[in-house]
Amino acid sequence: FNHWGLHISPDLDTLMYTLAGVADPDRGWGRAQESWTVLDTLSDLGGIDWFRLGDRDLAVHLERSVRMGEGETLSTVTRHLCRAFGVTATLVPPTNDEVRTMVDTTDRTLSFQEYFVRERCEPLVTGLLYQGASQATLLPEIGRSLAGDRLEAVILSPSNPYLSLDPILEIADLRHRLAASPAPVVAVSPLIQSHAFKGPTAKIMMELGFAVSTLTVAQHYADILDGIVIDPADRELSGAIADLGIKVWITDTNMANEQDKRRLAAEVISFSETIAG
Amino acid sequence: FNHWGLHISPDLDTLMYTLAGVADPDRGWGRAQESWTVLDTLSDLGGIDWFRLGDRDLAVHLERSVRMGEGETLSTVTRHLCRAFGVTATLVPPTNDEVRTMVDTTDRTLSFQEYFVRERCEPLVTGLLYQGASQATLLPEIGRSLAGDRLEAVILSPSNPYLSLDPILEIADLRHRLAASPAPVVAVSPLIQSHAFKGPTAKIMMELGFAVSTLTVAQHYADILDGIVIDPADRELSGAIADLGIKVWITDTNMANEQDKRRLAAEVISFSETIAG
Repeated sequence: FNHWGLHISPDLDTLMYTLAGVADPDRGWGRAQESWTVLDTLSDLGGIDWFRLGDRDLAVHLERSVRMGEGETLSTVTRHLCRAFGVTATLVPPTNDEVRTMVDTTDRTLSFQEYFVRERCEPLVTGLLYQGASQATLLPEIGRSLAGDRLEAVILSPSNPYLSLDPILEIADLRHRLAASPAPVVAVSPLIQSHAFKGPTAKIMMELGFAVSTLTVAQHYADILDGIVIDPADRELSGAIADLGIKVWITDTNMANEQDKRRLAAEVISFSETIAG
Repeated sequence: FNHWGLHISPDLDTLMYTLAGVADPDRGWGRAQESWTVLDTLSDLGGIDWFRLGDRDLAVHLERSVRMGEGETLSTVTRHLCRAFGVTATLVPPTNDEVRTMVDTTDRTLSFQEYFVRERCEPLVTGLLYQGASQATLLPEIGRSLAGDRLEAVILSPSNPYLSLDPILEIADLRHRLAASPAPVVAVSPLIQSHAFKGPTAKIMMELGFAVSTLTVAQHYADILDGIVIDPADRELSGAIADLGIKVWITDTNMANEQDKRRLAAEVISFSETIAG
């Protein structure tokens, strides 16, 4: 999204910082050992300071913006930045076109960051709009990868389905391509019973009139999912989910520490391997 | 000028920082107690790092760029920033339009900052171009001020005539308005004999084929000057300058410290008062 006139891609950056080992583990966003000189100075000048950009983080957005201003695509810039950060995994945005998540609330329509950061998810959500998603062009390598036979699995992380995953899934014909892909598509439910790991997932599901349950999540992705990982606390949903044609893997999905994360990731991979057969 | 996609006005900022008491006295540009986190990080990412923007300085350029991106003019933003910095003097840019100083060198044409900062004034200058200056619109308050009877004096500081003052003087019909103004127009020569206080003034004069002398400076401004302040070392030029119709004030123009600056400034003001009569 655009802030301070800069191209900012918070999710790509969080992945990049995490893989590079420079992410702030406590805050959950931005860089570790960050300083805030620019933000504090700009705040003193009466500037817009609700989106907290640290100095080191800002340098990344400046470099991205300069390169995109010169005509480079987001995917090219992302490749460059990952290389500069020593990230060996391949990170790609779903599209090089602009897609904006707009949040309809009882009062007015907010951009995602206004809703999420400035308003702290407080307004009541009445609808969501993924501006530009259907007209956007899917990154060609994603299409090739999904159609090919070298892709081992597609994993939908336990993120907010409406705020984080749908903005990607609604791009062009990505949902159809995921449904048609020979690779197993596996999700990890963001809910344990009616509680989300973090963030406003449960709150938004309620406001949108959905039952706050892993079954709702499975239904939401039913067209694309081959499997879903759910918590033992939701064991009784297994039958209903299986009826949707989705395989179920039951394991502790709560991630309290690094070890939990690695254990769950390994289980998700073995689950996807059993589905691939 | 534009750098990192930001609107940067180094001369306005140096004046603003100086008047606000936050300028770096040793460096001669930027802010005191500056940090360089963004620049260093961006440099590590392979970004363009020859123009050294400090963190606090950068915040000003970001705020200016955000406001100009929203349609505010440079003069409006300058007024806002000055207020935020507690500057009570009125600082105005000569125009809200874009004017770029381009430096022709033996090899190629460089932007002013490329020539001055990146190439450290090393290339041989063959010509200068003030792109956009003649088509630019002079700030209306400057025109009104010059035509009115409340303006006490116009003072041309001992800056580089070709790199610093001409880019302003060439805007629209400013030279004609200065010549026609009832207020005295007084310059301080940037030269003592054939040496400039600082910067590449003497070098450029030589390269452009001019005699490196205060007489050349007086001739260069002859159409607009009522008076010029020269150093005792150039006393013998007084007659030739007076022949141009320019009054001469002789005093030490070398400024080694704050006290020298204040003394010279006071003398320039009394000189302009004697001219105004």
